[in-house]
Parts: sequence; structure tokens; C-alpha cells
Amino acid sequence: MTTAGLLRDLRSIVGPRGLVDDPTWLVPYESDGLAMQRGRPLCAVLPRDTAQAAAVMARLARAGVPVVSRGAGTGLSGGATPVEGGALVGTARMRDVLSVDPVDRLARVQAGVVNVELTAACAAHGLFYAPDPSSQQACTIGGNVAENSGGPHCFKYGATTRHVEGLVIVTADGEVLDLTGAPVDPDGLDLVGLFVGSEGLLGLATEVVVRLTPLPEAVETLLAVFPDLDGACDSVSEIIAQRLEPSALEILDRLTIEAVEDSVFAAGYPREAEAVLLIEADGGDAEVAEVVARIRAIVERQGALEVRSARGADERKLLWAGRKGAFGAMGRVAPDLYVADVVVPRTKLREIVARTTEICREQRLKLANVFHAGDGNLHPNICYDRRDEDEVARVLAAGHAIMQMCVAAGGSLTGEHGVGLEKLPEMELAFAPADLRAMCDARDAWDPHRRLNPGKLLPVRACRERRAAGAPPASSAGAPFGSGEHGSSAGEPPR
Amino acid sequence: MTTAGLLRDLRSIVGPRGLVDDPTWLVPYESDGLAMQRGRPLCAVLPRDTAQAAAVMARLARAGVPVVSRGAGTGLSGGATPVEGGALVGTARMRDVLSVDPVDRLARVQAGVVNVELTAACAAHGLFYAPDPSSQQACTIGGNVAENSGGPHCFKYGATTRHVEGLVIVTADGEVLDLTGAPVDPDGLDLVGLFVGSEGLLGLATEVVVRLTPLPEAVETLLAVFPDLDGACDSVSEIIAQRLEPSALEILDRLTIEAVEDSVFAAGYPREAEAVLLIEADGGDAEVAEVVARIRAIVERQGALEVRSARGADERKLLWAGRKGAFGAMGRVAPDLYVADVVVPRTKLREIVARTTEICREQRLKLANVFHAGDGNLHPNICYDRRDEDEVARVLAAGHAIMQMCVAAGGSLTGEHGVGLEKLPEMELAFAPADLRAMCDARDAWDPHRRLNPGKLLPVRACRERRAAGAPPASSAGAPFGSGEHGSSAGEPPR
Repeated sequence: MTTAGLLRDLRSIVGPRGLVDDPTWLVPYESDGLAMQRGRPLCAVLPRDTAQAAAVMARLARAGVPVVSRGAGTGLSGGATPVEGGALVGTARMRDVLSVDPVDRLARVQAGVVNVELTAACAAHGLFYAPDPSSQQACTIGGNVAENSGGPHCFKYGATTRHVEGLVIVTADGEVLDLTGAPVDPDGLDLVGLFVGSEGLLGLATEVVVRLTPLPEAVETLLAVFPDLDGACDSVSEIIAQRLEPSALEILDRLTIEAVEDSVFAAGYPREAEAVLLIEADGGDAEVAEVVARIRAIVERQGALEVRSARGADERKLLWAGRKGAFGAMGRVAPDLYVADVVVPRTKLREIVARTTEICREQRLKLANVFHAGDGNLHPNICYDRRDEDEVARVLAAGHAIMQMCVAAGGSLTGEHGVGLEKLPEMELAFAPADLRAMCDARDAWDPHRRLNPGKLLPVRACRERRAAGAPPASSAGAPFGSGEHGSSAGEPPR
Repeated sequence: MTTAGLLRDLRSIVGPRGLVDDPTWLVPYESDGLAMQRGRPLCAVLPRDTAQAAAVMARLARAGVPVVSRGAGTGLSGGATPVEGGALVGTARMRDVLSVDPVDRLARVQAGVVNVELTAACAAHGLFYAPDPSSQQACTIGGNVAENSGGPHCFKYGATTRHVEGLVIVTADGEVLDLTGAPVDPDGLDLVGLFVGSEGLLGLATEVVVRLTPLPEAVETLLAVFPDLDGACDSVSEIIAQRLEPSALEILDRLTIEAVEDSVFAAGYPREAEAVLLIEADGGDAEVAEVVARIRAIVERQGALEVRSARGADERKLLWAGRKGAFGAMGRVAPDLYVADVVVPRTKLREIVARTTEICREQRLKLANVFHAGDGNLHPNICYDRRDEDEVARVLAAGHAIMQMCVAAGGSLTGEHGVGLEKLPEMELAFAPADLRAMCDARDAWDPHRRLNPGKLLPVRACRERRAAGAPPASSAGAPFGSGEHGSSAGEPPR
């Protein structure tokens, strides 16, 4: 069977508008938000529903080509980048909110529904979908599931995995698993729990049942302005030590503030500040008033120059606009932005920030900082130009140095962006060989040919050693990608 | 190698007090709280730490015998019952709280730590461990992990899986996996998420890193007394519809009230009531006052005859004593109690309760009801005497009829007690063959010989079909238990 035959079959499943194979139109599919690494897929297939997705996956299984799934492509770790070629299966045409159940507070959506659209669809019931990545205007629920995405309000509400109650999954060979039965934590082995955050290695989620959260009665947002970063960090520590539970605690440093204020996202952050701490509290009226009063006292004691308060939706939106637009605003500083995503014990926040600054200075790189401070989740943002090879090399070196430092400090590699391509080398630092082998085994149980999103999440060496150690996957042990009828070898899509 | 040789080796690992093989002393290990099904283990092994547990598991792997792990044996679905014989590995001597980190709000404990001991260990830091099974005075954190246990306050705080951040696991062949690195949701494939609720099929958890929750500033408990069950059910629906978020919503029916009031757990519940609704709210002072006032108005409108309020710890303890002691109190009604554990959509609460009553009437069984009403999690309690074979058969028939009705109504088989032995036949109703096969594959990736807790959670037929379909586990496909050097066949421990 030829490539043309495969494309013809795929087109007959999804219709002419569901298949992209023109090289010009494939350019956007070459990478996600980690712009420095790219790969060209053979085609992009855009099924409309589970049945089409299952037929597509079954056909691709027969062809033996790699499959990379993709939501909106807003990921920051290279998870949707087809580094080994093959077919890209996108969820862009699976955008229906299938049902909203206000009594049991569940919604069932197709994987391609955009994060904010889901919240819009349940607002009339006084409910919302809590995880709110900065890219929530564009990113999809399916992509959030693949990466176990977070967001500022995950400090209070938890990341995606805490909000997913069921999944419909199409497996590597095109079988449909309906794991949506239970209204609470699922019966049986928690395959849903395993799938969330599996970065496309276990299958394609086509439908997602999510838990909805009651809209709080009251929300109040504060912006505290500091003459130094330490005051902002120490405020966060004290807020947590006092067992206050705001819904978000975000720090932006001076370079970020400058970029935001120079951009369309200008939020009126004071340019003379070295740091701003954005605080939000939600809940009942009385509860919010109490939490806000206590937090205000803390930030003032920690040296805040000014504390602004927004209670109305419009004022609140303005204070948040700068935070949510921060990554976009950095585009004024340099054409590309590398957004690191490490988590450190909250006790080490100040020390790690100082060391990150040093690492970037050594590599002659411009660093801005945005943190989900409440979670200890740091996003050091490094500005660069991907056309400058030497600079790209220095960015990668700094990124790896930052990750290694955080692992050594007892932190973890990723808060919310996933491992993808970016953090692959550090997986061997964060996990012992036995731990990585257990992950490889879990993957092999779902995808024995390792065709799904190859080259991501699990270091090749750990898995290769597993095979050598005599635990081949269920069939065709060790078969290279492309061993099926199609015969294409990974990374070299036939033309 | 003989049985005597195996026992000698095990004794040399755990010491003489760590091995139980006297048939008299093995009686308590024959079942958990599902008293009607029993099995005799070859021995019970009680390691002190991860290293001993790993040596024990490696030795048992060489012997090729089944392994059942056990916490306190308070489970209600037969998860710790050694129905196929083999060795029982208990965590009773692994009771150290290893560390409490008040800043990152994490604790690291050995698996055998009792649920309330963990909360006691972190109370000085103003923190607690939120999941609170009714058996929390006895049940262990490791057992809670195996069953993904819940409890009354899981309505607000979520079940065990939402509180486990890391695990140290000993695998079927005695390898140690340390999945405790990350201070937040773990990097890599979420093996921790998969393991929680896996009922002993994937390995033995020896250490658990749990997330701690700040103790609320204020707690208030209400007891609303109703002349009928419907008023209590409707109150719960209205509280949820109004988006109020109490921390617990529990209903007890008349027979339960009578049993409690006749027992040492007497809580002063009024005997003339047909139902009581126990409500707790926690949070900031102002928040609690607001929530309680609004709930009080709802229950009064729904026909409550009386609403009692407890604010002090002692009064609160009294109101809760009846609820937490309800299962024990039923011992006055009959020698044995079957506690079902189904979850139904909250919209169908009244209908399902009525149908449950009918099913028990048809089978001439005495039924009492306790519900985690906020979650739609019902515990129909059926009183029986296990010495009466005919009655046991009718209890089983009623239990299966209740489960089947709940699955048909869009509910699930288990809220918090696990599948175990009890719900095995219904797994094939709740899941399609493909879903069950995916679970079998996930299990086979961890335990290819299927020696861990055989006969639980996954219906044998689904797994057998998987094998026939040509996807053998990694090695020794289809080998019966006891294929190792030891040569004993499951269920017939050699003497």
C-alpha cells in the first residue's frame, strides 16, 4: 500500500476537509509552543467524533506509522511536535459540549472544546470549570488532559487530574474504551487517573467528563506592589503559614512588568516596582472579606508599597490581563520565549530564584519571572531568537541547568506543562531506572508497538534497557516503528 | 524447596515475631469486614520496613505463591480475604510517621499508620489528613490507598486519591519503586494515580506521601430531625442546588437511629424520627456562620421537626458518635452486617432508596440505611447471621440486585469500599469487555503472573479472554499460580 493509498483511505473516513497533506498547510503542525524543535508530519487528520477517530486510528495502526495527537498546539514542552514524523491526529473539529448536568455537576465534552468555552457553557447554571491555563482562550480540554494542565487558580482548585471524572479513549489500534460510567471516582483500576498527563502515549481521548465547580459568591483581587522580589516571596510564605486559602497567588518580576506595560496587555502595574503579587480570594461574601483583610495586613507588614483592590468584574479583569498576557507581552522583548516550568519546595523559593538569575546571567540570557508562587511552581521565561543557533544552545543549557538544580533541591521537573521533549534528559535524574521501567511497562501495555507520540515523556534509553532485560511488549517485541504494511520508517515520511 | 523452607526463609527476613503460621493465630486473617467469604492463608508476614517487605516479596515471587496484602482488615468488599490461599503480607508493624512538613503540607508515613494517628501527628501544625472513613480509628493509610477510601468529609475534601502525592511501592517480584519525588502532581506517567484504588493487584505500598489540609478555623455541626426520609433527601438536593458547600451531609434512617440509641454510641437522636440529617460546615468564622444560617432555613422549609446545633468539640463529637458508630451499633440487631456501597446520580436518590427497600422486603431481610447523601453514595445495611446459609444467599441476592439497579440507573458499583470479591460479577455489567481488557493489560504490566490478590477486582473471564485473544503477559503466559519453585497450587496451601 502506498502513501497515496493511506491518504485516500483517511480522506474517505474524515472527508476532504478533515485531511491536511499540503506541505504549506502542514507548517503550523510542525511544533507546539516549544518553537525551537520541529518535525514534519505526513498529514494532519481531523476527525469529527469518536467513531471517525477510531476508524482513523485503526487505519494508521495497519499502516504502522507513528501518531501524534494535538489539541490547540499551545503546549510548551513539545508534546505535540511530530519529531518522528507519521500522522498527526487533531481535535480541532471535535468542539461540541455534549451535555451539562447541573445537579451532579458534570459536563461531557468533545476533546477539542476550548477551555473557556466549557466555562461559558455552564455559567448559566452557576458553575465553572476550574483549571485555567494562561492559554485558556485557545487550549483544549483534550490537550489539558494530555498535559495535566494547571493555571493560577489550581492553587486552590487543583490541576486537571482533579477535575476529570471520565474519558472516552481511542487506543493505538483503534479500539474504543468508554470509561465514563461512574459519577464519582471510577470503579476498577483507575485508568482515567493513569491517562491524565500521559502526553499522548496511551491513546487519544475523544470525550471527557469533567467535574464542574460552583461559581463563588464573591471574588476579590488584590495587587500588592513590592520594592523587591523577596518581600513578595516572603508574603506568600506567610500567607500559607497562616493557613489562609486564597484562590491564586501569582508573582511577576520587574522585566515581566515592563514588558506587560509596554504591550496591549498593559494593566497599570507600576513600572518602579521590582515585583507585584497578584492575590485572589473567592468564596462566600464574609469569608472573602475576612481573608482579604488578613492578607492585606500581611503584605503591608512585608513592605508592600501599595495595595490595590478590585472587586468588580471589570477591575478584576484588568489586573488579571497583565498576568494572563505576560507570555504574549514578552514578544516585545525578543521573538521567541522559552517558558520553563519547575516546582520547588516552597521553603526554597528565594534561593532557587536567585540561582536561576545567576544561571541566566552566566549564559548571557534575558530572564523574566512569573510564578504560581502558592504552588512553588516557577516559570522562568528566557527571551531568545530561534534563528540564532548559539543563543538557542545557551537557552537549552540554561533550561537544563535550572531543571537539574530544582531536582537536586527536592523539586520536580514540571508543574503543569508536561515533560514532552523538553524535559526528557532530566527524567533520568528525577527517577531511578526501576521507576522509569515501570512507566515503560505501563505504556507497553497500551501501545506495544510504541507508535503513539514516540520520543516523548519516557527516555528511550530506559525503555530500550527494559526490552533488553527480557520483558518484551505483548507482541512484535522490539519492532521498529513502521513495521506494518506501510513500511515507512519513522522520521522519514514517504512522499 | 518445602513449605517449611519457605517459612524459615521468611522468618529469617522478618524475625520470629514477624511471621504468623499457627492455624489458630491465622483465623483473624481469613477475611476482612465482608465476613461471609473466607480463605486460609499459608502464613501472615509482617515486615517492619520497605527493605524487609522487598525481601519478603522477592522470596514469595521465587516460591510462586499468591500474595494478599492487608492493612487493618476493616475493608468491606473482601479485598484482604485470601480466597486463593498463599501468603498474606500485613503492614501492622509499619506504623511510623516518618516526617511532617508543615510548609509544603506533606507527611510521609509507613503504610500501616492508622488514619487517626496521622491526623494526631500533624495537629500541632494546624493540619489534618482529610479522608475520614468510619473505621478511621483502626484502618490504615495503606489500606485507604488500596481501596481509595472515602468518608463523610470526602464530600468536601475528596477521596484518598486526591490526597496521595507519592508512594513507595514493592512490586510483585520485590523491586522497590520510589514514586515520592514530586511536591505536586507527579512527573511522568501517573503511576501513583493508577496505584491508588488498585486493591492490592499492582504491588504493596510501603510508604505514602500525603497532602495535609489546614484545620478549619471554625466548625459547626447541625442535626436536623425529619418525620420522613424524603424531607431529608430533598434538603440535600436543595443545599446542593443552592451551591452551598458544607463539609459533610449524612442521612441515617429510622432503623439505624434505633440501633444507635440502643447502643453505647447513643447520641441522643430522637427515636420518633424517620430520618436525621447530619450536616457539618467548616471554614472561616464568618463563612461557617453564613452557610449554617442558610442550611438551617432550608431544612426548616423542608419540614425538619427540630434542628440541633453543636459548636463546641464535645457536643460535636456526640452528634458524630452515632454516625461513626452506626455500623457497630447494628451488631445489636443481628450478628452480621452486609454494608453495600453504591453511588447513584443525586437526582435519583429517592427512587433508588424506595427500590432498595422493596428488594430487601422481597428477600425478607432487615434493611437500615446510612448515606453519604451529598455524594449520592448509599450504604444500605443488611442485617444477617452468617450461620444461616439461606439468609446469606438472600443477602447476596439482594446485594447483587441493588448493584445491578444502580448501574442501570447510571450509577456506579462502589463509592469507597472497592470492588474486591463482593462486586466482581457486576464489573461485567459496569464495563464493556474492551474496558476490562485494558484493565487486565495494565495489571499484567505490573504483575504478569497474576499472583497479587488473585480473584479480586477484575473478573477472571475478562482476563482469560484477553489471554485467549493472543496478548499474553510478558512471560510465562497462562501459567497457573504456583508455577514457581514452590509448586503449591492456589487455594491449597501445602502443610
